[in-house]
Amino acid sequence: MSTVIKNGTVVTADLTYKADVLIENGTIIEIGPDLKGDETLDATGCYVMPGGIDPHTHLEMPFMGTYSSDDFESGTRAALAGGTTMVVDFALPSPGQGLLDALQMWDNKSTRANCDYSFHMAVTWWGEQVFNEMATVVKDKGINTFKHFMAYKGALMVNDDEMYASFQRLAELGAIAMVHAENGDVVAELSAKLLAEGNTGPEGHAYSRPPQVEGEATNRAIMIADMAGVPLYVVHTSCEDSHEAIRRARQLGKRVWGEPLIQHLTLDESEYFNKDWDHAARRVMSPPFRNKKHQESLWHGLQAGSLSVVATDHCAFTTEQKRYGVGDFTKIPNGTGGLEDRMPMLWTHGVATGRLTPNEFVAVTSTNIAKILNCYPKKGAILVGADADIVVLDPAKEKVISAKTQQSAIDYNVFEGQQVKGLPRFTLTRGKVAVHDGEIRTEEGHGKFVAREPNTAVNKALSSWKELTAPRPVERTGIPATGV
Amino acid sequence: MSTVIKNGTVVTADLTYKADVLIENGTIIEIGPDLKGDETLDATGCYVMPGGIDPHTHLEMPFMGTYSSDDFESGTRAALAGGTTMVVDFALPSPGQGLLDALQMWDNKSTRANCDYSFHMAVTWWGEQVFNEMATVVKDKGINTFKHFMAYKGALMVNDDEMYASFQRLAELGAIAMVHAENGDVVAELSAKLLAEGNTGPEGHAYSRPPQVEGEATNRAIMIADMAGVPLYVVHTSCEDSHEAIRRARQLGKRVWGEPLIQHLTLDESEYFNKDWDHAARRVMSPPFRNKKHQESLWHGLQAGSLSVVATDHCAFTTEQKRYGVGDFTKIPNGTGGLEDRMPMLWTHGVATGRLTPNEFVAVTSTNIAKILNCYPKKGAILVGADADIVVLDPAKEKVISAKTQQSAIDYNVFEGQQVKGLPRFTLTRGKVAVHDGEIRTEEGHGKFVAREPNTAVNKALSSWKELTAPRPVERTGIPATGV
Amino acid sequence: MSTVIKNGTVVTADLTYKADVLIENGTIIEIGPDLKGDETLDATGCYVMPGGIDPHTHLEMPFMGTYSSDDFESGTRAALAGGTTMVVDFALPSPGQGLLDALQMWDNKSTRANCDYSFHMAVTWWGEQVFNEMATVVKDKGINTFKHFMAYKGALMVNDDEMYASFQRLAELGAIAMVHAENGDVVAELSAKLLAEGNTGPEGHAYSRPPQVEGEATNRAIMIADMAGVPLYVVHTSCEDSHEAIRRARQLGKRVWGEPLIQHLTLDESEYFNKDWDHAARRVMSPPFRNKKHQESLWHGLQAGSLSVVATDHCAFTTEQKRYGVGDFTKIPNGTGGLEDRMPMLWTHGVATGRLTPNEFVAVTSTNIAKILNCYPKKGAILVGADADIVVLDPAKEKVISAKTQQSAIDYNVFEGQQVKGLPRFTLTRGKVAVHDGEIRTEEGHGKFVAREPNTAVNKALSSWKELTAPRPVERTGIPATGV
Amino acid sequence: MSTVIKNGTVVTADLTYKADVLIENGTIIEIGPDLKGDETLDATGCYVMPGGIDPHTHLEMPFMGTYSSDDFESGTRAALAGGTTMVVDFALPSPGQGLLDALQMWDNKSTRANCDYSFHMAVTWWGEQVFNEMATVVKDKGINTFKHFMAYKGALMVNDDEMYASFQRLAELGAIAMVHAENGDVVAELSAKLLAEGNTGPEGHAYSRPPQVEGEATNRAIMIADMAGVPLYVVHTSCEDSHEAIRRARQLGKRVWGEPLIQHLTLDESEYFNKDWDHAARRVMSPPFRNKKHQESLWHGLQAGSLSVVATDHCAFTTEQKRYGVGDFTKIPNGTGGLEDRMPMLWTHGVATGRLTPNEFVAVTSTNIAKILNCYPKKGAILVGADADIVVLDPAKEKVISAKTQQSAIDYNVFEGQQVKGLPRFTLTRGKVAVHDGEIRTEEGHGKFVAREPNTAVNKALSSWKELTAPRPVERTGIPATGV
Repeated sequence: MSTVIKNGTVVTADLTYKADVLIENGTIIEIGPDLKGDETLDATGCYVMPGGIDPHTHLEMPFMGTYSSDDFESGTRAALAGGTTMVVDFALPSPGQGLLDALQMWDNKSTRANCDYSFHMAVTWWGEQVFNEMATVVKDKGINTFKHFMAYKGALMVNDDEMYASFQRLAELGAIAMVHAENGDVVAELSAKLLAEGNTGPEGHAYSRPPQVEGEATNRAIMIADMAGVPLYVVHTSCEDSHEAIRRARQLGKRVWGEPLIQHLTLDESEYFNKDWDHAARRVMSPPFRNKKHQESLWHGLQAGSLSVVATDHCAFTTEQKRYGVGDFTKIPNGTGGLEDRMPMLWTHGVATGRLTPNEFVAVTSTNIAKILNCYPKKGAILVGADADIVVLDPAKEKVISAKTQQSAIDYNVFEGQQVKGLPRFTLTRGKVAVHDGEIRTEEGHGKFVAREPNTAVNKALSSWKELTAPRPVERTGIPATGV
Repeated sequence: MSTVIKNGTVVTADLTYKADVLIENGTIIEIGPDLKGDETLDATGCYVMPGGIDPHTHLEMPFMGTYSSDDFESGTRAALAGGTTMVVDFALPSPGQGLLDALQMWDNKSTRANCDYSFHMAVTWWGEQVFNEMATVVKDKGINTFKHFMAYKGALMVNDDEMYASFQRLAELGAIAMVHAENGDVVAELSAKLLAEGNTGPEGHAYSRPPQVEGEATNRAIMIADMAGVPLYVVHTSCEDSHEAIRRARQLGKRVWGEPLIQHLTLDESEYFNKDWDHAARRVMSPPFRNKKHQESLWHGLQAGSLSVVATDHCAFTTEQKRYGVGDFTKIPNGTGGLEDRMPMLWTHGVATGRLTPNEFVAVTSTNIAKILNCYPKKGAILVGADADIVVLDPAKEKVISAKTQQSAIDYNVFEGQQVKGLPRFTLTRGKVAVHDGEIRTEEGHGKFVAREPNTAVNKALSSWKELTAPRPVERTGIPATGV
Repeated sequence: MSTVIKNGTVVTADLTYKADVLIENGTIIEIGPDLKGDETLDATGCYVMPGGIDPHTHLEMPFMGTYSSDDFESGTRAALAGGTTMVVDFALPSPGQGLLDALQMWDNKSTRANCDYSFHMAVTWWGEQVFNEMATVVKDKGINTFKHFMAYKGALMVNDDEMYASFQRLAELGAIAMVHAENGDVVAELSAKLLAEGNTGPEGHAYSRPPQVEGEATNRAIMIADMAGVPLYVVHTSCEDSHEAIRRARQLGKRVWGEPLIQHLTLDESEYFNKDWDHAARRVMSPPFRNKKHQESLWHGLQAGSLSVVATDHCAFTTEQKRYGVGDFTKIPNGTGGLEDRMPMLWTHGVATGRLTPNEFVAVTSTNIAKILNCYPKKGAILVGADADIVVLDPAKEKVISAKTQQSAIDYNVFEGQQVKGLPRFTLTRGKVAVHDGEIRTEEGHGKFVAREPNTAVNKALSSWKELTAPRPVERTGIPATGV
Repeated sequence: MSTVIKNGTVVTADLTYKADVLIENGTIIEIGPDLKGDETLDATGCYVMPGGIDPHTHLEMPFMGTYSSDDFESGTRAALAGGTTMVVDFALPSPGQGLLDALQMWDNKSTRANCDYSFHMAVTWWGEQVFNEMATVVKDKGINTFKHFMAYKGALMVNDDEMYASFQRLAELGAIAMVHAENGDVVAELSAKLLAEGNTGPEGHAYSRPPQVEGEATNRAIMIADMAGVPLYVVHTSCEDSHEAIRRARQLGKRVWGEPLIQHLTLDESEYFNKDWDHAARRVMSPPFRNKKHQESLWHGLQAGSLSVVATDHCAFTTEQKRYGVGDFTKIPNGTGGLEDRMPMLWTHGVATGRLTPNEFVAVTSTNIAKILNCYPKKGAILVGADADIVVLDPAKEKVISAKTQQSAIDYNVFEGQQVKGLPRFTLTRGKVAVHDGEIRTEEGHGKFVAREPNTAVNKALSSWKELTAPRPVERTGIPATGV
């Protein structure tokens, strides 16, 4: 059974050209004029682009005895509905839990996925077991990215010496460090102070993690990565402070990437000042939304290339779950949705305005992260041999975002009421048509794990440079006897 | 007649993979395993990369009654010898000369080219004829890039209002502005002062154009381009001052590119302090070489992406020609060579050290400029359908650069004595093997003009943004009568 | 006749302490506890501070056949009413007019001044006469500051080579360069384009001189001053773009000062979008008001010390005069008032908020500029021997700013309706009480010219550094014969 | 008994003028022409300046069972010999030791001081006792500055939550936070790695604390101070990385000061590559010397005002003590001398070159720190009523620095061989002539403690701003019931 996408304009991170795309067995087998297949998808007036990759999701994430409400089924269904064909989730070991054990738990959850997926491994504590299992994770499990939480003190947070030790290990293994960058000590202190002063509402969450604490942690992670000689990926870069640290590092030749979220690009802190507690609490995530100055900085970063990837940090909690935090903002589950909305929101606010070219759109939603994570061109490409993860985007198709019509399992949408233009006519996951002209045809369990190799070109270049510039002892003769 | 490149590793700006490359009629027709062709080139142990594109040459450029000594024949021969398969030269109208007339002169010279080439048009004066002919150049002549000299007062230099007028015209035409950025007024004043003070030697050239005057002009050109709404390409970015202006602009979302030269990346101002007048004079070019701080800034720019392209400004004058300036540095012809050396020097100092990945090497020597100039993927790509402009780079092959063995027509080489590693085993120009294992097999006149269309994706995005944010009149009623 | 200011707290740029201040013959003769004098001014609860110095006014400035409506009498009366005890105006030669001739005209106008004053000389064209008379102005006329307009093309504007020549002359004379920094070429082009597009209202004025054109010109002036080796003072720094250029230069050790206006610190561009044409036109000045981001940048500059002085550019035109520009914004006379309001507005928005300390308030309103202009400690100080130019500021005194109660001759006030707190209880000009508890007791003609010497410590240090780092010829033997 | 300094030129941070200075009972009682006193000091050809204040010394500091070799006697003798008339040392509690207890120990040592002195208190651990005693230290002991070590893990180092708690306490008390900014975790990790790799020599010390770890810690301290709302003083700012963090903070309106040392301004890392182990080890201090790029950054900071104070961190160990670290650089006692050399070195490299004006010299060696520490104008001023701490600097007097002729108790000098010009003819400490034309006439025990009050103008302004911008709860009605 073959499928052909006809009459569209192929748009990749590099190229824009008219061509048909022929697919067989989940793979692109031919690109060119006048192709034929068993099934034909008409892409007239549309862009045929690599499906989106969202490198930052938390599906069915354990939280306070319950779980984030979108699991791998509903989450990937939402993803496909919005043109995203791959997600990368985080395997989060509990304190003391082994990496392999945690990974097994995430493997179990992901069996229901509708589209392909991969995992980042989190390093949430440090010890010999972690050190040892890191090698297995990299060499046997197809994972080359390891996340470190600099926030969530007393839970997921690791300290500087643990980060250094882990980063150094990653450098040896040819893997990539990731950080959630907020100063957990200071967030804890500010939170306690705010609560003590009666700032208990959802806006307290934003007050407790101002841009400064994110900028500081980003800057610190960059230094530690530099010392350890490992490339660094900073998740959910939400503000100028953090972006400044990243671009300053990049401008010194350091290998650092930043990832703004579609939420931070399009929503702002005024959401927390909404008189409706639920409205505000539903927007609680870390980092919180920022003001317009920060938004502008993020857009500029995407334009300049100092920020590389647009993600969602999709971690959906229902209003009921959010209400755990009534009277104490620190108990509001952190997270918002976005998997279905990332691509249309970015097209509308990014491409339609002229901030980004269509090629840059593909780069920041798909190709850049595929390269960073080392699954390009299997993913993130329209090339012969690539997986047929494709979105056929109709630039004329419009809708108003609403929780009522969304795929996500939760009862609201942070983009509620947004008019978007530029929607999938078709989404294909490894050749299977999961979205067909508005109709959802996902298949639970269709998704497969995407293994990713270490030792990328960037790892190798960085290692060469670090070796070339490594400290060398001065040769001396006649060293005096010790004074002790 | 088909040619196959066997057993190599294809390296592009995106990808690194083992594959053979099959060529017919000057075009890549297949990429994959186990290909066969009439002629076989063994690429075992080599990288099969897009041939280099040097977007900045001055071949057979008129100067003081004579010409730069490398013409399109020797210049493109040198290019191919070093793995560069396309050059872009500048058609320079004399004061009052029409653009089309000048273009005709350059068309005549380029008939001898050994590899493909294109032209940038220079705007060296302003008037209705220039305004009108710009449209013809863009629409009929396949040229979408127009250079403006902010230096060379009394000769090529244009003023701010002329630049604005020209840039605005380019915005209308969907073309791209280029600048040689040095403040010509100040250079002229400093030159006169230096000569008056007895600073007549070649080092006076460097003193007369410090980084500040380049930084200033770059900053000014960026502002004017921003006001006119046109993308800007800054040639020969030699220093932190200019790079700072470019990256600051990019970080505000402006569409600006910077082009360091291989000379500025690897040589420094100490060359001008050489006791040998000839040695110093041979290095006289504008902008001059800078100190190590500036070099480091340029490397960082390539790593960070704030600088986009490595070029040469190849404009070769013999020692005899250089001696026109004995006793008066302002009469030393400005220019150095580099066409044969750019690729090996960059590989040696960039890739072998770990500063750049091999993919980034391809990006900055070929692919980025092909995209900017809008001749990608015809050029700058290893893709089916692309021109077979290919360099098969042998990373183990070494040499010591020397004027004695170079292709260039001049009697010295500014890189004399440099040990380089990473040299072409083969260079192919539209399928023709021009370098074969050290043997030069170029064919005079083989090169063809590469036409380039306007209205790139970047032009379109910028225009959309400028339209969206254009000034709008405030609607008022009851405007008072004028006070006069 | 002696006067004593009793029971106040002396606040200077350095110090805060309780003391009485005794004055005789216009001079402070004693500072200490329990002083007595013939007249006693009760400063209980007040700060006794150096009177404000406004280094940027245009009183009775010729314009389109008329004059700015505040002359030296009403202007200095307004100044004293607000606690400012010295103004520095600009002598503006017409094209071709000699400097001395122009200075004579300004001398004539200033005879009516109620407080002391000085002049900056403007260089509005270039020629041997200007070159020669500059020496006389510096050596005989007590003026060490020369302003250059980079805007007002076809009128006051000078080009880069003229600026360089003038700056170099200033370096020789030990004087200081000043610039009005806007790119006049681009302003002219943008203005023409806006008018052609129907943007004829006052908001067109703002559109025609965006921050970019100011930032560019500032950056250019800094480079030229650096090349000429002269300290530079940038008047009316209104935006981040210009401030960025200044602080970047300062961070490279360059001697550059920036001067925000109280208007730009407290008002924004939304004024131009007012539906009332008169309202908008009354706010037309160059540079125009900017947005909040720029305001914040200016405040930060004052806090960090990257900006040095708060001025007004007081140049008052009546509504009737403003209406010259109905239908064509380029004909609206440029200028606003502020002399009476600068000190209370800065105290209210700067000190009362905690942005500035009271000492920093004194520094930026008086002491810093006295030092820069080289009239410290005659002016800008509360020291024995200093002129008794003193404001006794009552931090509890409040008012609402209104044209109805102002001293200025015009019929509106751009700060209309602003509630300010922190007003003069007394203002003394050379010992004479000009403001007495709300009552104005100015004396026309009391003001005297303040002569200022060249060769400040900053000039000398800069000259030493430039001499130390000046280009030196390389010593060579065996220079070849010329090639010509 | 009165003393008059005759015929000199008074140079302060503000002013340069001819005047005699009359002193009685340790205090300046008159400044003016033709003064007479019992004793006359001839200052013909000299500058009469406020004596230097070195805010960063470690005299008789306990270390590994011994003490730094300059105590309060020899240290302050060296200070006076070089024109410094006040030192500020650090009271360092051992782990668990109370602040008051430690202070008592330092009080005991300082009884031998030849010149006035004050203390900073160090916070080396955190607990209720520290919290409580801080109030006593501020209110009763005349100390308003508290230092925190971010390095020396396992010894003096405090963590982020401890710093935040301490900083917040300081904000309440109106005091000022100080930090030694290096990331102690990373320094420890790098040290261990270097030793393991055989990098055991003194250069290993420099390798173990690269600029990045200082820049990071500085940036972190600034963020924590900002969150706590307290002014911050960063000691021994040695590099661009740290300076960048400081100036970035200042440019956002934050109240942060940086203190380069004279060593970092004039010496560089090449000292550690000296073949002589002793030579290298004698230069071991934290932070270590940096390269020329960093030096240039520090000079620029002094010029721009982004760095405020030049100090020494004088902590002198003999060669014998240094040799404790043979075979293990981590055991080399950290510290160098400089008290005698700071003023002449800065004059020679700063003023004589034109980098700084004489007034700026006074500012950065004396007046600025007196203001920051809140002992101005008792110290740091030539004013009636000020302490007669005066250096009469003879700009023509020269010497070559040598350990053979120094006051310090140690057997070497890191500035050995430096030719300096600009030396004290006289140094007066509270009126007593301690240096008389080359002769040392110090008096052990003459020095007195200088108490310093909290709640400076900067503290008050910062508190106002923080109060104004403090988080406020959103007023809501109808908050839902909790979901739990």
